[in-house]
Amino acid sequence: MPGARNLSAALRRTRVPRPRLLSRPVVSHAPNATVRAFTSATARLESRQIKYTSDAYPNVKRDSRFAELSADDVSHFKSLLGAESAVVDGVTADATDDIEPFNSDWMRKYRGHTRLVLKPQTTEEVSKVLKYCNERRLAVVPQGGNTGLVGGSVPVFDEIVINMSRMNNIHSFDQASGVLVADAGVILEVADQYLAQHDHLFPLDLGAKGSCHIGGNVSTNAGGLRLLRYGSLHGSVLGLEAVLPDGTIVDALSTLRKNNTGYDLKQLFIGAEGTIGLITAVSIQCPPRPKAVNVAYFGLESFEQVQQAYLQAKGQLSEILSAFELMDGRSQRLVHESTGNKYPLEGEHPFYCLVETSGSNAEHDMAKLESFLEHVMGEGIVADGVLAQDETQFRSLWRWREGITEALSHLGGTYKYDVSIPLPELYQLVEDCKERLVQKGFVGDDDSFPVRAVVGYGHMGDSNLHLNVSVRQYDKEVEKAIEPWVYEWIQKRQGSISAEHGLGIAKREFIGYSQNETMVKLMKQLKDLYDPKSIMNPYKFIK
Amino acid sequence: MPGARNLSAALRRTRVPRPRLLSRPVVSHAPNATVRAFTSATARLESRQIKYTSDAYPNVKRDSRFAELSADDVSHFKSLLGAESAVVDGVTADATDDIEPFNSDWMRKYRGHTRLVLKPQTTEEVSKVLKYCNERRLAVVPQGGNTGLVGGSVPVFDEIVINMSRMNNIHSFDQASGVLVADAGVILEVADQYLAQHDHLFPLDLGAKGSCHIGGNVSTNAGGLRLLRYGSLHGSVLGLEAVLPDGTIVDALSTLRKNNTGYDLKQLFIGAEGTIGLITAVSIQCPPRPKAVNVAYFGLESFEQVQQAYLQAKGQLSEILSAFELMDGRSQRLVHESTGNKYPLEGEHPFYCLVETSGSNAEHDMAKLESFLEHVMGEGIVADGVLAQDETQFRSLWRWREGITEALSHLGGTYKYDVSIPLPELYQLVEDCKERLVQKGFVGDDDSFPVRAVVGYGHMGDSNLHLNVSVRQYDKEVEKAIEPWVYEWIQKRQGSISAEHGLGIAKREFIGYSQNETMVKLMKQLKDLYDPKSIMNPYKFIK
Repeated sequence: MPGARNLSAALRRTRVPRPRLLSRPVVSHAPNATVRAFTSATARLESRQIKYTSDAYPNVKRDSRFAELSADDVSHFKSLLGAESAVVDGVTADATDDIEPFNSDWMRKYRGHTRLVLKPQTTEEVSKVLKYCNERRLAVVPQGGNTGLVGGSVPVFDEIVINMSRMNNIHSFDQASGVLVADAGVILEVADQYLAQHDHLFPLDLGAKGSCHIGGNVSTNAGGLRLLRYGSLHGSVLGLEAVLPDGTIVDALSTLRKNNTGYDLKQLFIGAEGTIGLITAVSIQCPPRPKAVNVAYFGLESFEQVQQAYLQAKGQLSEILSAFELMDGRSQRLVHESTGNKYPLEGEHPFYCLVETSGSNAEHDMAKLESFLEHVMGEGIVADGVLAQDETQFRSLWRWREGITEALSHLGGTYKYDVSIPLPELYQLVEDCKERLVQKGFVGDDDSFPVRAVVGYGHMGDSNLHLNVSVRQYDKEVEKAIEPWVYEWIQKRQGSISAEHGLGIAKREFIGYSQNETMVKLMKQLKDLYDPKSIMNPYKFIK
Repeated sequence: MPGARNLSAALRRTRVPRPRLLSRPVVSHAPNATVRAFTSATARLESRQIKYTSDAYPNVKRDSRFAELSADDVSHFKSLLGAESAVVDGVTADATDDIEPFNSDWMRKYRGHTRLVLKPQTTEEVSKVLKYCNERRLAVVPQGGNTGLVGGSVPVFDEIVINMSRMNNIHSFDQASGVLVADAGVILEVADQYLAQHDHLFPLDLGAKGSCHIGGNVSTNAGGLRLLRYGSLHGSVLGLEAVLPDGTIVDALSTLRKNNTGYDLKQLFIGAEGTIGLITAVSIQCPPRPKAVNVAYFGLESFEQVQQAYLQAKGQLSEILSAFELMDGRSQRLVHESTGNKYPLEGEHPFYCLVETSGSNAEHDMAKLESFLEHVMGEGIVADGVLAQDETQFRSLWRWREGITEALSHLGGTYKYDVSIPLPELYQLVEDCKERLVQKGFVGDDDSFPVRAVVGYGHMGDSNLHLNVSVRQYDKEVEKAIEPWVYEWIQKRQGSISAEHGLGIAKREFIGYSQNETMVKLMKQLKDLYDPKSIMNPYKFIK
């Protein structure tokens, strides 16, 4: 990368490997993430080519206990929500083009048959909508930014979509406590930019930040890039407002950091994927925005060395370590081929890492980072490295991590597995999966082979691997070779078959690989308690 | 404090207020906290003087649906648990002296009538005990270190005590992930010392650490001194094992940082005070142990300045700030009178703060701390201050904060209120309470007045105040003057009537001041779901 500080060059010039500081350390904020979601216009044009989920999952049948939408229902909702823009009506009017973006997902993997989209603007409207649906037994799907990866936010059959995009107000921010209160439909990046004006940071960052809603983030317990530093939403979400299927408004929108007065019910809604209630507002603890952020990008020769580098980063960078991301050589080659960008390092390496620090003092952070770099390069843990020198380089390095999903999406289909595995075996899954597919004769460079590449990357600091199998087209034989083999592999290591993406429709069949029977039984019991008519996001999560 | 670095002296010698570094910065670990709990021997001798809870709360009646213990029950338990030491039998044998420590709490405020204490050693034993109790409808009270403040861990009537002290094994610790797995009955300080050997830290610290159990900490969602830095247990607890009343073992003892496969049921047990199940093991994410810890102690002239100091600490110390504790002048005078120790600062101030930093680089931390001190002293936010120079001073300064509870306990009774209030009004509650009690003629220096002092201190960084009214003896008139007035005061500010101590029997009547009717209804629904026969810790938490 021109102008960036090449660490191996610095090492070559000195006997004691001490990386030189060629210019001022980077002072910048978090990377502007790739916005994943398609625009509505794109989706509208292309959605008709997407296979219906009901065809892709022939075993999933419409629950005949659900009522079918009538013209009376539609006129009821129209009068309830008032505004013309609040209802997309494909029942009594022809809204086919308008409604398609709400029926399908950005990956073009899932497509439903809804004929009605409702966009409430207040919690009371949500309450009235759900109460009516529950009484009529009309199934619904809550929908945020629709950026999910497991088909959780689009209908399967004719479920009514309750889209949250019109509930997008920020209620309050308190500088002393760092607590933000906002509607569920606020876009993550909008929330973070608002916080930036107050020198604070949203404690969550992910690729879809330009489209995803904070309500959706909480509903899916999104993990992302900052979990290593700021912890999970179960810790940072202080309060919630949600509406139960019967219309009950659960007002637990506390802004208190500590409140031990009874069961912490709000926790149940975090990660429930809209199956027991609909989150309408969120109160969240936000940390001060770091004054200095640095990023280094390494090439390494083995996964053993990646682990060593991580342990060193954890010990030496400690309180300023804000990301430790793993990318394998294949994933970086795909980004290179997709973007045409020059590699940050000379030559190719089997593994790459991106290490980010965030702190309150640029000089201290740089001193810690230099000492860490000196160690990992001096000990030969890291083969080569580069340190961003300005915000442009900072963003550019992050794109080698964040651009993987997009690079893959240009190549055809991708079988995506988002898993937690104990660190020592984290990458072994990629090796084993590749070997399995090679042995079956599926992998090759020319178009006669279904599989183009087996790629691994992810959040090393959270033991969270993204295994991606890039295929020229979706192929049942390939899928059968991977599943349930991949889940069995994970189960043997007490891992999770869905670390951060959730269950949706894609993973619900496989919950038994990461949860025992008792847990699944207890989950069903809770679902029955809160949603006895099963109207909330049916066909998803748990059966 | 002799030898400690007096900051005002340093300031006096320089025009630009730059605190001098008189010796090496303190490198030490967390303070050795005061052990609150009485020893068994002390409790045995004194417990008979404690008023029975059933007398103190005449409105609470024994639930007649519960069975009474028979000789058959006792022999069943004896054969089930095997070991002689596993059963303290006051039913078929005279175990009066032996059983009393399990009947009463360290504050000498609560005393029950149990005649049977069971000490299971395995999860299977807990399961068999609970299954039997549930079938026979025998009420039980789970008991950890019995260090609680709201009477949650002692019986009211003849509930069987299930004491967890024999389940005290550490299962595993993983250096790479920092995840500790341990039995519920492991003492907090033992867990922390074990982690110290592996350069890690338990992400919770509190005064009772020498006696309290980690299972009890999780059951009560304990807050304590490190929450500001490491967040709540809802974020750091990764997994739990618990036993439901019907004997079902809930194996959710995951060690994964990320696992989005279904409802996060373990969250329900965190802070449930043993009312829906009994926690038998815990898996928890532990941070690397800080290499450098520093502590400063300030005197300030107003609460406005305390707030300014806190905001400056949050902004400037940022990622290394690990505690910001508030103590009012009166609380420090009590510690002085109780211990006879010389004040750390010359003269007296209306407010004091203790600021702790923890980081990975002693020089960086000291530089940040100095810059912070320079600012708050230069700007006149802090009137005087002292910085610990070695571990002895470090511990000594912490005792001015941690010794308050003990100092108060020597004076007679204490009405304790542990509340969350938005920061600007945090201390106003102490002022208003004092004014109210003065106006009623309750406060005075000689023994004719029931109230000796109204004291405020707490975890400023968490907006968590401990309001303590020190009385010469417990007095219904004083209590009536404070309650429900104090709860109404908190409710008006959307605060919490129990920030970290929980509900127990002391606060359960008042839940309505911090939770709305819908929330309480939903809580009861959950209690009924998990514990339909209401055998788990009855008379506590919610009604």
